[in-house]
Amino acid sequence: MDERMTIKVGVLGSAGKMGAQTCEAVEGAGDLDLVARIDQDDPIAGLVDAGAQVAVDFTHPGVVMDNLEFCIRNGIHAVVGTTGFTDERLATLRSWLDAQPGVGVLIAPNFGIGAILMMRFAAQAARFFESCEIVELHHPGKADAPSGTAGRTAELIAAARREAGLGAMPDATRTGLEGARGADVDGVRVHAVRLRGLVAHQEVIFGDEGETFTIRHDSLHRSSFMPGVLLGVRRIVDAGGGLTVGLERFLDLD
Amino acid sequence: MDERMTIKVGVLGSAGKMGAQTCEAVEGAGDLDLVARIDQDDPIAGLVDAGAQVAVDFTHPGVVMDNLEFCIRNGIHAVVGTTGFTDERLATLRSWLDAQPGVGVLIAPNFGIGAILMMRFAAQAARFFESCEIVELHHPGKADAPSGTAGRTAELIAAARREAGLGAMPDATRTGLEGARGADVDGVRVHAVRLRGLVAHQEVIFGDEGETFTIRHDSLHRSSFMPGVLLGVRRIVDAGGGLTVGLERFLDLD
Amino acid sequence: MDERMTIKVGVLGSAGKMGAQTCEAVEGAGDLDLVARIDQDDPIAGLVDAGAQVAVDFTHPGVVMDNLEFCIRNGIHAVVGTTGFTDERLATLRSWLDAQPGVGVLIAPNFGIGAILMMRFAAQAARFFESCEIVELHHPGKADAPSGTAGRTAELIAAARREAGLGAMPDATRTGLEGARGADVDGVRVHAVRLRGLVAHQEVIFGDEGETFTIRHDSLHRSSFMPGVLLGVRRIVDAGGGLTVGLERFLDLD
Amino acid sequence: MDERMTIKVGVLGSAGKMGAQTCEAVEGAGDLDLVARIDQDDPIAGLVDAGAQVAVDFTHPGVVMDNLEFCIRNGIHAVVGTTGFTDERLATLRSWLDAQPGVGVLIAPNFGIGAILMMRFAAQAARFFESCEIVELHHPGKADAPSGTAGRTAELIAAARREAGLGAMPDATRTGLEGARGADVDGVRVHAVRLRGLVAHQEVIFGDEGETFTIRHDSLHRSSFMPGVLLGVRRIVDAGGGLTVGLERFLDLD
Repeated sequence: MDERMTIKVGVLGSAGKMGAQTCEAVEGAGDLDLVARIDQDDPIAGLVDAGAQVAVDFTHPGVVMDNLEFCIRNGIHAVVGTTGFTDERLATLRSWLDAQPGVGVLIAPNFGIGAILMMRFAAQAARFFESCEIVELHHPGKADAPSGTAGRTAELIAAARREAGLGAMPDATRTGLEGARGADVDGVRVHAVRLRGLVAHQEVIFGDEGETFTIRHDSLHRSSFMPGVLLGVRRIVDAGGGLTVGLERFLDLD
Repeated sequence: MDERMTIKVGVLGSAGKMGAQTCEAVEGAGDLDLVARIDQDDPIAGLVDAGAQVAVDFTHPGVVMDNLEFCIRNGIHAVVGTTGFTDERLATLRSWLDAQPGVGVLIAPNFGIGAILMMRFAAQAARFFESCEIVELHHPGKADAPSGTAGRTAELIAAARREAGLGAMPDATRTGLEGARGADVDGVRVHAVRLRGLVAHQEVIFGDEGETFTIRHDSLHRSSFMPGVLLGVRRIVDAGGGLTVGLERFLDLD
Repeated sequence: MDERMTIKVGVLGSAGKMGAQTCEAVEGAGDLDLVARIDQDDPIAGLVDAGAQVAVDFTHPGVVMDNLEFCIRNGIHAVVGTTGFTDERLATLRSWLDAQPGVGVLIAPNFGIGAILMMRFAAQAARFFESCEIVELHHPGKADAPSGTAGRTAELIAAARREAGLGAMPDATRTGLEGARGADVDGVRVHAVRLRGLVAHQEVIFGDEGETFTIRHDSLHRSSFMPGVLLGVRRIVDAGGGLTVGLERFLDLD
Repeated sequence: MDERMTIKVGVLGSAGKMGAQTCEAVEGAGDLDLVARIDQDDPIAGLVDAGAQVAVDFTHPGVVMDNLEFCIRNGIHAVVGTTGFTDERLATLRSWLDAQPGVGVLIAPNFGIGAILMMRFAAQAARFFESCEIVELHHPGKADAPSGTAGRTAELIAAARREAGLGAMPDATRTGLEGARGADVDGVRVHAVRLRGLVAHQEVIFGDEGETFTIRHDSLHRSSFMPGVLLGVRRIVDAGGGLTVGLERFLDLD
């Protein structure tokens, strides 16, 4: 590959778990060049000095807006995994970007391509099946049940069913133990398994007369987010500027 | 196979779903000979006239004791799938059998070999894993949740854990939706999925540091009980008489 | 629903397995009206007499072209599950349809919505994962291995990988038993399991660093094709005429 | 727990992957006390100086016999994960142990309790099902296909089927691609999937009329062997001396 074609990348929050993993992934990619590692005590100006074209931000909600203002002003694209983006914050980002045509920012709550595909396919399949339930399975140290991904998947399925005019799912349960039928998220039953030895897994099961259709995602390690981060870096450079919310926008699934 | 070696079988309740299936299965087995089909309007004496050595009973709790008294008195072994056997009824059967040495009766609440193996293996595995949960999945016409098999499996697992001195399973859930963590059966979480297109399925998932272990049973048709019924017929002839409760006693798993 | 809104349906090959199943499904649908059952000894003119708007054809390659010529000439839409459509036959159909604007014909090699979704999603997911293999599982009476659906899925995945510039999948296997790594279909490994008790099942497993993504379809009964047949009937009426090949064209997945 | 009840453990090969993991596991167990870490440059006499009651050996075939001779002579029980034990070596061990009544040695080719249970249950279930196939799934860096565990499982199943008088499994495959039906291990079909993102997984699927029965083991990390190692340490102390081959001997599964 032509040396001039590599993309120069700086990482903000480089000493955190996700930041460190990103540094390692960028270094391992032939078409990317890691030019700056910036953590909380390092001046962000290091991005400019190093000639970074894209900054990847895995920092904190308290500092991310300052980081992005700096990047946009200096013509550096940004790929952001930090959380806490309210509608107000997104509006502010848009106004900053309007003043800097050609600069792009990707805000991605989830870089897991597997999880994104699972939600996308589940929403598309929902209107073809009479029944659908979700089983999510995680390590026993998880504090919330069901998981945020499971809840979001259920909402997408419920919305697709409503749009297609589907009614309530069939369920003749008359007697039972409390909790046996799971949690009700917008009419979709969600079951949360907690087990030592598991990491993060989810199964969406659809059923209709004579057949079932299942989408399953198993995430075993934080490294599973890296293909999504690198895809964001590569795509933001050619995106033509502006704000993009959600990595799925870059997956060309339509 | 030597013709004299076939076992002569009569079916009580021959027009019911299970009875009819049993007739078909017996006719299809080279070592068995269907000699009598007896339904509610037929005289049970037909068993004796036909020379039946074994009677298979899929009738009703209201008539099964009369049927068995007749069989035992006439030296005919019985394999029974009819429900409703209280301790009192079992005691009565034992007293009848004491008076007829060599005659055997098998009372089996479940002829599904897969389900029996699932429960047996789950009980054996239970003491080796820190965590265990059950997911059972059935057609949406089922009235109870969780299924009886899932409840029974959970009780066996709980008993094995207690005997091994295992404490409560790890679970850091602090916030969540009601029902997300399933039903609590004796400390074992059980989740019940109901979905058009499913028949009867159960998964027992064990987990410990770095590994999971899963036992799954999928039952797709009533015919899945027939190998168990035929095994019962073959074994009761050589069992040496007396009362046997549970097909597992004939599976030689120890 | 307004009585005038029901669609009048005739079934060709009404005594065959799929035809009989279709008659039953049409009768069970509130928005469809079964007006004609036509089998091999019945005159096809019965479709016109009964006022059929749509004909469903599950007959034989030897008669299907005559059936379709009749339908098109009489302004009756057709939904066709019969096989044997060569490019030449499709060209003939197009010429007939050109002469009858507004009449529509759907040729569908597969009415299983689950199978169509599985192939579609697998093709979309293929470019995001370094590895992909297929495991298909069928009853032991099946003559071919792997199944046609598995082979077709592998080809779609291989094409998507080529288009995305992905190379060969990682595989360090150096020693092994012949056949252990499955069949090679266009660079995609396909494994065929044959087991008493199974019907028709397929699993497509994708993997990348730290995660796997699985799409599974379980078909337990011929009735699983009926939702697809009925969807075809409803859509062909509003399709504006012309030839449509593949039910996926009516699933609005883009 | 009474302090006097802790078992004093020394680890041979303490700097290797398995040895280091064992040290960590022993330190984390309330009833065990890590008293010696011995690697290749350390004198083995350190075991005696530290008062070790049990030595865990994860070293090399070239040194393990010397290590065991030392342990046995000094009255120290041994739990051994090192490979390379021929019948000749086992005979030598027995002669050494005969001279030291009360000293016990456990030779375990596999400390994974999940894998041991999978093989055990598969062998027990084998005689009840007409069909059985194995699918093993591993990371793409694995050199052999199928895995040793899959091959061993297939042999156990084949032996159990022969003993039960079962013939060949049903399989009507007439046409197909080479390799589609997997490898033939003693009449049992074994399929090997290799996929980035996987670690070590195996599924044994049994099938009979109307039902399937599946045993699955997922091993995600080397730490999954530790419960087996610690169980071996606890049991060898009370085993009454002598040679034990295979951790399953200590699982009390009968």
